[in-house]
Amino acid sequence: MRVGIIGGSGYVGGELLRLLLRHPKVEVTTITSRKYAGEFVFGVHSNLRGATSLKFVQQDLSSIVDNCDLVFTATPHGASVGLVPKLLEVGLKVIDMSADFRLKNPEGYVNWYEWEHSSPELLKEAVYGLPELHRQEIKKARLVACPGCMAVASILGLAPLVKNKLIEGDRIIVDAKIGSSGAGSKPSLASHHAERFGGVRPYKVVGHRHIAEIEQELNLLTDEPVTISFSPHAVNMVRGILSTIHVFLKKSLTIPEVWRTYRTYYREEPFIRFVRYPKGLYQFPDPKVVVGTNFCDIGFELDPHINRLVVLSAIDNIMRGAAGQGIQCLNIVLGVNETIGLESVGFHPV
Amino acid sequence: MRVGIIGGSGYVGGELLRLLLRHPKVEVTTITSRKYAGEFVFGVHSNLRGATSLKFVQQDLSSIVDNCDLVFTATPHGASVGLVPKLLEVGLKVIDMSADFRLKNPEGYVNWYEWEHSSPELLKEAVYGLPELHRQEIKKARLVACPGCMAVASILGLAPLVKNKLIEGDRIIVDAKIGSSGAGSKPSLASHHAERFGGVRPYKVVGHRHIAEIEQELNLLTDEPVTISFSPHAVNMVRGILSTIHVFLKKSLTIPEVWRTYRTYYREEPFIRFVRYPKGLYQFPDPKVVVGTNFCDIGFELDPHINRLVVLSAIDNIMRGAAGQGIQCLNIVLGVNETIGLESVGFHPV
Amino acid sequence: MRVGIIGGSGYVGGELLRLLLRHPKVEVTTITSRKYAGEFVFGVHSNLRGATSLKFVQQDLSSIVDNCDLVFTATPHGASVGLVPKLLEVGLKVIDMSADFRLKNPEGYVNWYEWEHSSPELLKEAVYGLPELHRQEIKKARLVACPGCMAVASILGLAPLVKNKLIEGDRIIVDAKIGSSGAGSKPSLASHHAERFGGVRPYKVVGHRHIAEIEQELNLLTDEPVTISFSPHAVNMVRGILSTIHVFLKKSLTIPEVWRTYRTYYREEPFIRFVRYPKGLYQFPDPKVVVGTNFCDIGFELDPHINRLVVLSAIDNIMRGAAGQGIQCLNIVLGVNETIGLESVGFHPV
Amino acid sequence: MRVGIIGGSGYVGGELLRLLLRHPKVEVTTITSRKYAGEFVFGVHSNLRGATSLKFVQQDLSSIVDNCDLVFTATPHGASVGLVPKLLEVGLKVIDMSADFRLKNPEGYVNWYEWEHSSPELLKEAVYGLPELHRQEIKKARLVACPGCMAVASILGLAPLVKNKLIEGDRIIVDAKIGSSGAGSKPSLASHHAERFGGVRPYKVVGHRHIAEIEQELNLLTDEPVTISFSPHAVNMVRGILSTIHVFLKKSLTIPEVWRTYRTYYREEPFIRFVRYPKGLYQFPDPKVVVGTNFCDIGFELDPHINRLVVLSAIDNIMRGAAGQGIQCLNIVLGVNETIGLESVGFHPV
Repeated sequence: MRVGIIGGSGYVGGELLRLLLRHPKVEVTTITSRKYAGEFVFGVHSNLRGATSLKFVQQDLSSIVDNCDLVFTATPHGASVGLVPKLLEVGLKVIDMSADFRLKNPEGYVNWYEWEHSSPELLKEAVYGLPELHRQEIKKARLVACPGCMAVASILGLAPLVKNKLIEGDRIIVDAKIGSSGAGSKPSLASHHAERFGGVRPYKVVGHRHIAEIEQELNLLTDEPVTISFSPHAVNMVRGILSTIHVFLKKSLTIPEVWRTYRTYYREEPFIRFVRYPKGLYQFPDPKVVVGTNFCDIGFELDPHINRLVVLSAIDNIMRGAAGQGIQCLNIVLGVNETIGLESVGFHPV
Repeated sequence: MRVGIIGGSGYVGGELLRLLLRHPKVEVTTITSRKYAGEFVFGVHSNLRGATSLKFVQQDLSSIVDNCDLVFTATPHGASVGLVPKLLEVGLKVIDMSADFRLKNPEGYVNWYEWEHSSPELLKEAVYGLPELHRQEIKKARLVACPGCMAVASILGLAPLVKNKLIEGDRIIVDAKIGSSGAGSKPSLASHHAERFGGVRPYKVVGHRHIAEIEQELNLLTDEPVTISFSPHAVNMVRGILSTIHVFLKKSLTIPEVWRTYRTYYREEPFIRFVRYPKGLYQFPDPKVVVGTNFCDIGFELDPHINRLVVLSAIDNIMRGAAGQGIQCLNIVLGVNETIGLESVGFHPV
Repeated sequence: MRVGIIGGSGYVGGELLRLLLRHPKVEVTTITSRKYAGEFVFGVHSNLRGATSLKFVQQDLSSIVDNCDLVFTATPHGASVGLVPKLLEVGLKVIDMSADFRLKNPEGYVNWYEWEHSSPELLKEAVYGLPELHRQEIKKARLVACPGCMAVASILGLAPLVKNKLIEGDRIIVDAKIGSSGAGSKPSLASHHAERFGGVRPYKVVGHRHIAEIEQELNLLTDEPVTISFSPHAVNMVRGILSTIHVFLKKSLTIPEVWRTYRTYYREEPFIRFVRYPKGLYQFPDPKVVVGTNFCDIGFELDPHINRLVVLSAIDNIMRGAAGQGIQCLNIVLGVNETIGLESVGFHPV
Repeated sequence: MRVGIIGGSGYVGGELLRLLLRHPKVEVTTITSRKYAGEFVFGVHSNLRGATSLKFVQQDLSSIVDNCDLVFTATPHGASVGLVPKLLEVGLKVIDMSADFRLKNPEGYVNWYEWEHSSPELLKEAVYGLPELHRQEIKKARLVACPGCMAVASILGLAPLVKNKLIEGDRIIVDAKIGSSGAGSKPSLASHHAERFGGVRPYKVVGHRHIAEIEQELNLLTDEPVTISFSPHAVNMVRGILSTIHVFLKKSLTIPEVWRTYRTYYREEPFIRFVRYPKGLYQFPDPKVVVGTNFCDIGFELDPHINRLVVLSAIDNIMRGAAGQGIQCLNIVLGVNETIGLESVGFHPV
């Protein structure tokens, strides 16, 4: 299959390219960048030096039509909404990495993003690209809307609990820690090394946009309303998210019961690993362990002191939180083994 | 006043020495270390090269009696309990940095520390060394038990809310992030650079011992029972704690009302700073900003989405979480200005 | 003395303010910033919250004339050259933190900075603000040109050797490692956290501008020509410079002979510390140990394998490499103790 | 081929296992660890959770004989020397990751390692496992001695210059920067996070053992004696080495001439990349870019100021500096494509 990447100079675009270059079922024909058009891709993504002689090109619809069957749109939030309809119109499949097609309800864009959605009809059609929840729909999708990175870690940690109605729906606290790559490749004071190094900076302490998609997806699983209390923190690492999820059990559960709930829900999922191990250093998920992989590591602990369950969910925000997940969706669309191109198991230490 | 430091080779002992060397009302006569007795202090605490020619000595009670009026015990948890009674017996004042005299109820040591306390009568006498809560008692204390580092950040963030009965007492989530110095100076796999760098490691996800003192202190402020859901995380920094405190309001509050609650409670406290500022990068507390200082920076945000209040409380764990606070208590005992020796305002950037 | 800071929103300006606020002989009357005029200083330099209610003002010569006796110009390179003459004209003393008055030879600006100097006569008058080499001239100076951060570490490490003609003048290799604050507070891709974290990036591998001042100052000490081979590297820290200086001895020296050379040259210097200690972890200088201080830590080792001497010189680039050194110069100008306001001994660990 | 790893709990052993598990020509039958025998490998190497159910076993020669055709010895320096002869005796091939068979001259072990070599005859037979220099000998080797990590970066950067007699042989300065994984997985104060984070620590400033093998290998390339001035520094990263090599040209060279020297020497080498690019951020090698790969990135710059050439050579110390290189040697021994199992191109950013 011939694949294009629109918006290829960012971290997600570069990671998509890295993965697609090694993907046996795919040929990357096009990678666009306004800023770097005409330049070698490896001038921006230095890791790809020697791996490809591709150059960035300007975004040109007719050339994309001719050279691609499927397009990844790794464009900024608010830019995909105008572009995707045109790509669909000419018969392309689209896997969109932005937030522009994640919400089902057009009002969500008004409330959370403060703009009016120009293609509300596509919101119905778009499939939320989280394979564990929407595998069957992704298979047939024309438009896949890849989830937000912090939403992935949060939804995957919570889904089995919500689905089984085990927790108080209005006392779900997700305290997230995220690496600097999550802010993208554009320099800013918030991501300036001297300012970000060695601290823990709370940001969007309330009102973070990923809340919208987390609540949307979790509420699809249950008829009991779910409300999320979400606060992210910028920490001193590059890749990775840890979502620490504090929930309160409606009735007491034993550890085996919680295990069973998770194992049953994620039976045979290739990218869910359970981490709850009494030996060694990494007894619970740590984003350090999943760097470079498509895994979502999930662990938990029961707090007998108060009827709390702490769930820990760790991903690589660029992989499982974006590009890796995009490739997993691509594999589902292609009908091939979901792990193709995503075999990396991570490094120890890194 | 002649002061001694017992257990001077650790991070807290070194920091106490640094502060005391510049303290105009104090002379450090003794600093002990089993491991380094006979060696220059600056061989361990390299920052003190040129600042002192003190050498570590073996711990010797008769020499301490002769040379000290007050002693800081920066001994490991479980070691102070045997030592402190002997020091008090010979008429010394003691500021203990360990956990051994923080809990009022001897059973707390059985439940949380798994050992029986050998001097339960001293638990009644010992004053919990948090000036904002116990200033009057510290003035007259013979034995001050300095709070645990994560307890400080948590209690100071919560006290005004608990005192005023504004929050649900059984849904208080404290999600803490702590730097590596909090684990002390003894090498271990958990603090091995290659393992700790670049990750976020949950540890003691439930059952952390600081819960005992947090609940003890908060329950003294109210007749409504308070239970803490506490989970700390090891992050990639050296100094600092951020406690992100998620609480739920019993009834809606406005931002000015929350402001007023905090301002009233901490009126004229020299080491409480409020950080809630609409400009610049550091709109909320960040431990990076308090490195090297005795401040506890407190900020908050209301979540209109659900009746949540997020409180952020940042300290330097070695300063406000240990040695700095010890000096503040010393100043209170001495009856001098509390800020003596604690004037550092921190660095930008560091 | 009434002091102003022109260009106060950068890291050097902020650090000057921090130091001056505590300086007993000085009152800061003015701090300027084009970008932040009208805003509280603590909105930019968050460490100063509670320490000052100063606001940034626009740069206005007549107001500066009225309110200041001495001005620190922490303006960008190339901006001071136009400003300083005006400040001198109205009778102010100036301590310039930029590179604009460091070189004696106007052609140096053409060769190394690629612009023509508009006040070459002032280059003769300006005193290079390195107290260890120019203390007597600084005392009487109207205009002090503070050295570049990497020049400080390099010159101080080399001066005793060059002065005593002990080393080959054309095989002096200075391999420098510098933290991200050295690049200033303006965001750029090079200082983007995700790009800078966890790497070692060589930059300006040849032709770095600090070579000009290093060679100027060293050649003043000897009649044997000195040429510097200098290459800096951006490393994953915020504050600090380590200059590793590899030189070759003209004839063999013993360790005591090298010691004597350094001790004689830097007799009673308050901010030179020698670090060559057979115990503990910090046997040689490490920038980590001087964070927040005005020290230049110097150590050395002889290489019997080849007649090499390795000199290690560590400073805090914002302190000893800029603001701290500026204050030291101010103290000399004022005729007070050089250490006033510069008493901090650093932290362990940080 | 059936492969065993002796000493599998360290970072090199774990990385070998990670690579071998995906190697299509190899089956890992045995991984030993004294400390962790009986435990799952993923308890130590958490990245391998889900990738293998192997357990560590005690080192048992008869079992190794039965189950392995080739053995990697990832044992500590000084432990391989006793073990390897026994493995060879029973007909196994050995790729040794330690320093015990790298030096040809037994006296090297007395001089640099301070012990007497017990199998000097094997030193003649052992092949230094640097494919670019010894590919033909590796093909036929019974015993491959994998180079030291800092030796790899240094030799590969220098070999073309030495071979072509372009540089002064007694003024070769190698200033190396290395990540914490280079110190191994055993906790120590030097690798304690609080001590190592955020600094640059010079260590083994003179007399580092890798000098012995660097000089051995370079002197094999030329009849002009080569002496190395080598000083390493511990920096704040986990994986990676940058060797900054300062050399002085015997006669002037142009940039194209240097290019040609390198390109000719390393023609078609699969794991040498040249990085000297006028655009983007990574214009020269940076260890950050090679994390997780087997590449040695080499770049250079001419210094017209003095006849200096600066060569920059970056590797991942665990990959190209150890396990990756071991796999490359294995591939050569097996007679298969050298890149099998080593396809990873690295990440941007990481």
